[in-house]
Amino acid sequence: MTVVLDTILATRRWVARERFAGKLIGFVPTMGAFHEGHLSLIRRARRQCERVVASVFVNPLQFGEGEDFERYPRDFSRDLALAEQEGVDVLFHPAAEEMYPEAQQITIQAGKLGELLCGPARPGHFAGVATVVAKLLNIVQPDRIFFGQKDAQQAVIIERMIAELGFPVQMEVCPTVREADGLAMSSRNAYLRPEERANATVLYRSLCHAATRIREGERDASRIEGEMREMIGAAPGAALDYASVVDRRSLEGVSTIDREVLAAVAVRFGKTRLIDNVIAGPAE
Amino acid sequence: MTVVLDTILATRRWVARERFAGKLIGFVPTMGAFHEGHLSLIRRARRQCERVVASVFVNPLQFGEGEDFERYPRDFSRDLALAEQEGVDVLFHPAAEEMYPEAQQITIQAGKLGELLCGPARPGHFAGVATVVAKLLNIVQPDRIFFGQKDAQQAVIIERMIAELGFPVQMEVCPTVREADGLAMSSRNAYLRPEERANATVLYRSLCHAATRIREGERDASRIEGEMREMIGAAPGAALDYASVVDRRSLEGVSTIDREVLAAVAVRFGKTRLIDNVIAGPAE
Repeated sequence: MTVVLDTILATRRWVARERFAGKLIGFVPTMGAFHEGHLSLIRRARRQCERVVASVFVNPLQFGEGEDFERYPRDFSRDLALAEQEGVDVLFHPAAEEMYPEAQQITIQAGKLGELLCGPARPGHFAGVATVVAKLLNIVQPDRIFFGQKDAQQAVIIERMIAELGFPVQMEVCPTVREADGLAMSSRNAYLRPEERANATVLYRSLCHAATRIREGERDASRIEGEMREMIGAAPGAALDYASVVDRRSLEGVSTIDREVLAAVAVRFGKTRLIDNVIAGPAE
Repeated sequence: MTVVLDTILATRRWVARERFAGKLIGFVPTMGAFHEGHLSLIRRARRQCERVVASVFVNPLQFGEGEDFERYPRDFSRDLALAEQEGVDVLFHPAAEEMYPEAQQITIQAGKLGELLCGPARPGHFAGVATVVAKLLNIVQPDRIFFGQKDAQQAVIIERMIAELGFPVQMEVCPTVREADGLAMSSRNAYLRPEERANATVLYRSLCHAATRIREGERDASRIEGEMREMIGAAPGAALDYASVVDRRSLEGVSTIDREVLAAVAVRFGKTRLIDNVIAGPAE
């Protein structure tokens, strides 16, 4: 039985009891609209930990003006049914007023890490993410927290936040789960019209191309970026936001690929913005 | 015996053992150069908690360009002797490289609360304070944390940070400890030359004047601010930074004093910047 808790206090109490009983607690923060990506995180937590807490909270702080906060997919009863199936112990599902009873004044800023890649298109986004994750960490106080590699920049920023602010938690970043044709699972895929959905495979195709080129010896990052942009430009309806090869920790551009890099893309189809990434590097 | 620990890991381990043993842990974060103000915090922690951890860390993040980071008073052996006397269990005394092994990218920002009062004179200061306190909270994970009312804006910001980010700790703000002539104790008082030290009593005198005027029925904040400024202006060598009557939680200016307010002043004597404050309000 999955227990649904909608207050911070009840969640703190539940977790305190389990911690006192010595249970290892895993935590999967989500915005709901569960897909196989979320479920893979929950299963990983389930395997590693004795108790699994997941949260479903569409965090207003991480949406900018004109973004899709209002229409972001929400289906809590379906999420709860899936959580039950996967053996989630607690689903923390607070209202926005519970998390932010007053206008939030104190925020966590990601510095330069928040300004690269998706930063220019989503000002304030990563501060909103870091702030809510810090608050969720303080509420749940898990032993381990699980994120998906799909949101690579988020994962880098949260990993850095945990390290730099000393949060007493271990973080796991889990592989991106993909549709059969390679499209990374995302709650936002539901926005795509059929022809957009068909063309959206260009994100992963461009990333696979980049990974192949690197594996085959290409070391010029800008050449690979140019090829990715060309592929994306050739896909009908695709508007490029970025296609970048960057240092996988600092997220800064590299000129020569002499270490592990993150190849990352963001592409718009109509109003829908999709992101994806792969990690690649020269063979040892 | 006070145990001195200089690594995060050793401190986490010490605290984990005590927490596992069910001990209530109090924490007093300081920049060292202990005076009676610090000792009053330690004594309060000692009375309320079964274990007392204090930290001595002159936090570079909270000093601006041209401020007194280099010359800030440091006397760790004296601090340790005083900590012993007061029954501190652990003195956490990390090097800057232990707290910030790389340039800090992730910071906690105080928003508007950090821009009022001391904000304009000390850009970045409260972000530096909030960031280090968050990190210390994550390392020590105390049940209670103790701050002095002397640094009123800091106390408001940290209280708000704890509430808004959900840190699992209870905060106590303890009364300002004063010299016989009213000067608030501060490690920076040591910078004052004898004549500056004598004139520095004007801070508290102006605050007492404000409190008396409010108690006697004056409700016009700007009139009281004017009188405080006049008193400070009449003190030889005193350069006014601000003399303000503000809401004690939002720190925003008030026009009519119809609730509890913070009367706060900042004054420079030569290169030494002093602050002080009192809380005052209309009688019930």
